[in-house]
This record gives sequence, structure tokens and C-alpha cells, in this order.
Amino acid sequence: MQYPQHTETRFDKSSEELELECTSWRFAVETNNLSPWKTIPEECESYVKDYMMGRGYKADLERVSSEAGIYAMSLQLSGDGKDVWVFDVDETLLSNLPYYADHGYGLEIFNPVEFDKWVYRGMSPGIEPSLKLYEKVLNLGFKVFLLTGRSEKQRSITIENLTKAGFRSWDKLILRDSEDHDKPATVFKSEKRSKMVEEGYRILGNSGDQWSDLSGSSPSNRSFKLPNPMYYIP
Amino acid sequence: MQYPQHTETRFDKSSEELELECTSWRFAVETNNLSPWKTIPEECESYVKDYMMGRGYKADLERVSSEAGIYAMSLQLSGDGKDVWVFDVDETLLSNLPYYADHGYGLEIFNPVEFDKWVYRGMSPGIEPSLKLYEKVLNLGFKVFLLTGRSEKQRSITIENLTKAGFRSWDKLILRDSEDHDKPATVFKSEKRSKMVEEGYRILGNSGDQWSDLSGSSPSNRSFKLPNPMYYIP
Repeated sequence: MQYPQHTETRFDKSSEELELECTSWRFAVETNNLSPWKTIPEECESYVKDYMMGRGYKADLERVSSEAGIYAMSLQLSGDGKDVWVFDVDETLLSNLPYYADHGYGLEIFNPVEFDKWVYRGMSPGIEPSLKLYEKVLNLGFKVFLLTGRSEKQRSITIENLTKAGFRSWDKLILRDSEDHDKPATVFKSEKRSKMVEEGYRILGNSGDQWSDLSGSSPSNRSFKLPNPMYYIP
Repeated sequence: MQYPQHTETRFDKSSEELELECTSWRFAVETNNLSPWKTIPEECESYVKDYMMGRGYKADLERVSSEAGIYAMSLQLSGDGKDVWVFDVDETLLSNLPYYADHGYGLEIFNPVEFDKWVYRGMSPGIEPSLKLYEKVLNLGFKVFLLTGRSEKQRSITIENLTKAGFRSWDKLILRDSEDHDKPATVFKSEKRSKMVEEGYRILGNSGDQWSDLSGSSPSNRSFKLPNPMYYIP
């Protein structure tokens, strides 16, 4: 791969300065304040690596899982089988961190061919705090719908990977069909949520690491943003 | 005021542990992952103070202003006077940090009587990065609508304070009328945005420090979340 050529900023700034700047960048990512972006800032590579591999990412995953769990338990479900929790898959239930660790934690421009190879290995580890939430909402009686930007062609490897990672008993696994491939994720996911609503489902919870999982039409009653400073999907 | 009685957690945890935990809490606040909350976590008082008084808050304000500015400049306005940028007032254009510094940075339960006294002093400083964005969007030809949860009774002091802080030439200042007082901010602000849309305005940008400024119906084409770890408005 090719790294950008100008690396001086990496060494010009104090580590405190960089920490401040990259934390500010991360908050801009997580609050959806940034324009569509393709790679992480070069000077934040170490910051993103430390966050993802250290305790920060784990702490954030655990908090979003526990907050979502508190909310799920606070609801009185109708019992008619129409109460739904939607989960995204990548960086929500399954982690591609091993792949991104080998590709600069978001510093390299996304390579769909390489990433597909990784997906077809079916080796993405489960995100433990999300598995905890997943089991909680199933036990509470929610219908669980998985809504992913992965291709319909990847259905069987996705099922295999999810199962291996401990995810079971979902009610629907919705992938991108051929007519969906050119749609931005926000459009594709909004259409699928609207279909759920038309079918009489109530979307009470939605967990995703991208704002394109959570915004758009037919939004969930409450949405939970998992952390992901490595990549952006419009 | 009364502080909660159990203070041992403050001293049990290492400062690194606390930093991690309070950063994670702040992430959950800024991404709207938390249930409605009334006060900041007691153990995060120093963290919130350091963030608000130090360079972190300033860096985040500057980033959101610059990202919004880049977006504003990227748009081709219609020239028919119907392109709108909406700004919230408190913690978006005007800062109440001097008030909150005297009230535990969000550790004290909100006291509307005391806060109103502060508002009537008309001494809230302007938020400089927001003033920069404000002037930019005015110069670009946006209509500027200020949409605030402040009461209609506070119109003149709000005008006085805004003017003193350098904000001028807005097109509308929308405050809460008597019939709006019991509405959650999300409802009140959604209604007012819907009215704008009915009147033919296009809401292209929206800046606010609360998710209740930005979510709900008739959302802006793009929304910009300013940081505010001190308080939550539903």
C-alpha cells in the first residue's frame, strides 16, 4: 500500500497536542460532524491504534451495551411478536479489527477486494459486550433483525461466522441484494426499516457503529451508536 | 446545595481509570447513547471541569465550527432567500460556562430559578468559534433562524445578550411561547422546523449542543453537534 508522503506533522507536535487533536477528531467522527471521510488523519494513526487495541474501545463497547440493556429492560413488550431490535453486523456484532490491524487501522484507503477475502474467511471475532446485549434482548422477547450492508452472496459465510461467534436465533438476516448495491447504506437501511414498519413491526432498539445504520427514515425508538474511528460508510 | 453522600469512588480509582471511565461517559453523552440524565457522574466532576476549562472543549468547538463552515461553503444556494441555517442559543452561540462553573459543572441538579437569574443578567459570553460560523453563513447568504428553548419573556434580554456578544442580523428569533412550555425540546423544535418547511424554507444546516436541537421531524440536511457534557435537555 501507499502511505501519504508528508509525515512531518507526526513529529512536529507534542504528544499532548496530538492526543487533544485526535480526541477532538474522534468526537467529531462519533457525533457525525464530519463530512464523508475516506481515511483516518495520518497523524492519528497511533492514537487510533492505541484506542482500538487498548482499554478505551472496550470501555466504550461495554458502556453502550449496558445502556442499551437498561433501556431494553425498561420496556414493556406487547407480546405480539412485533417488537424488534435491529443490529448491524460489522463492528457491531462481529469485529474486523484483525483485518484493520493489518491495514493501518483505517489509514489505508479501503480495499474491497482484500476486505472480501477477509469476510470469506469467516474469522471475525464476536464483540462480547454486543453478544451480551444480543442475548438479553432475545431473552426479553424481542424479535432480532440483523441488517447488514454485506452482500446476499455472503449470506452463508455470514451465518457461519455469526454462529461461530455465539450469535444464534435471529429472526431475519437482511443483506444487500443485487438491486441494493448502488444505494448508500442510509438509503438501503432506511428502506428495509420502512418495510419492517409496513409489516407491523415496532423498531424499539437499533445498534450500529455507523450513523448510516441509525439515521434516515423509520428510525428506531432509540438508537445506540457503537464506537468506530476506523472507517466511515455513507 | 447538597452533594451526594457516597464519595468513596472518587478516591478509590486511579486517575487513569477515571480518565478512561469519564471519557467513555462523555462519548456516550455526545452520541446520545445515554438515557435522560440529570447530573454528571460525581466521580467525573474534575474531568468535566478540566475538559470545559481546558483546551479540550475549545478544540471541539473549533472543529465543529470549521466542519460546518466547510459544508456551508460547499453548497450552492438557490438565491431565493429560502436557504436556512438554524442555530440553538445556549451552549451554541452563548456560553453559560460562568454559571455552571459556580454550580459544579453539571454536578448540581439544575435550578431553574437560579439559572433564570443568570439569564436575566445578560452576561453570557459569545462562543467565538460559533460566531465565526455564524458570520460565515450570513455572508454566504443563508437566512439565519435562532431556535431556542428560552422563554418568550426572555426575548429582550436574549437580544441584548446576543448583540453584546457580536451576533447580529438574524432573520428570526424563535422562543418558547406559553403554549410551548410543557413540550419537550425535541417536540417544540421539531414543530418549529416543520413550520419553516411548510413556509417553503430549506433547512440546510443546524447547529446545537443537544440532540433535542437536532433530532425529531423536519431535520436539517446536515446537523452539527456541539459538545456539552454538563447538562441534558430532553
